[in-house]
Amino acid sequence: MFIEIEADSTVPIYLQLAQQVIEGVAKGELKPGDSLPSVRAFAADLGMNMHTVNKAYHYLEEKEFIQIVSKKGVFIHERSVREATEKDTDRLKKELRPMISEALCLNLSTDELQALLNDIVRDIKEGTR
Amino acid sequence: MFIEIEADSTVPIYLQLAQQVIEGVAKGELKPGDSLPSVRAFAADLGMNMHTVNKAYHYLEEKEFIQIVSKKGVFIHERSVREATEKDTDRLKKELRPMISEALCLNLSTDELQALLNDIVRDIKEGTR
Repeated sequence: MFIEIEADSTVPIYLQLAQQVIEGVAKGELKPGDSLPSVRAFAADLGMNMHTVNKAYHYLEEKEFIQIVSKKGVFIHERSVREATEKDTDRLKKELRPMISEALCLNLSTDELQALLNDIVRDIKEGTR
Repeated sequence: MFIEIEADSTVPIYLQLAQQVIEGVAKGELKPGDSLPSVRAFAADLGMNMHTVNKAYHYLEEKEFIQIVSKKGVFIHERSVREATEKDTDRLKKELRPMISEALCLNLSTDELQALLNDIVRDIKEGTR
């Protein structure tokens, strides 16, 4: 998969990396059970600090997007793609709420918000940045 | 306005406070030009550390939701409610994208995502948590 890091973003690099792995899963480019490079190999490949890759991996592990199996490797988690539980949608609602508030302050109508959402889904699926 | 802080949330308290002020603006409870309490008064009122309120205010100031006018007070920013520019929607898209990726991994369809969005808008407008 192709990882693109914005050096001047306010989003920390480890988080950009983690988010792009999640996008890879969302697009179906990465599938449960697929293996990811070791921290060392990924860092060398991306020209990044190993600490940064390590931090991204721990973030992804905590969110059950990857599983780190000692001496075996790093794998896309079996639970990375699944049907949403009520707990999942409750968490998503909570996380989305502050941004939706900001959108409402910008006078976006429900239709405009839905159009924005459709744009984002399309960008993710097409890999457009 | 009524501020409700979840002590056991993973969202830092200053950010919960800031987000609830933004929600107040989104709901129209707080209008551009309205004044907010001083850091000291707000902290006493909420039983919070002044440092926490101060951090929330600086976050809100940076995002142009409030204006801190020395010796005059703290006011809801004239630009807090405005028509979205292209820059605004680009920023929103960027901020929403990681969460929409996660929603796609949870197999939420576009319809389910839109329903989730409508729920959030309703919750914000009704002040439901």
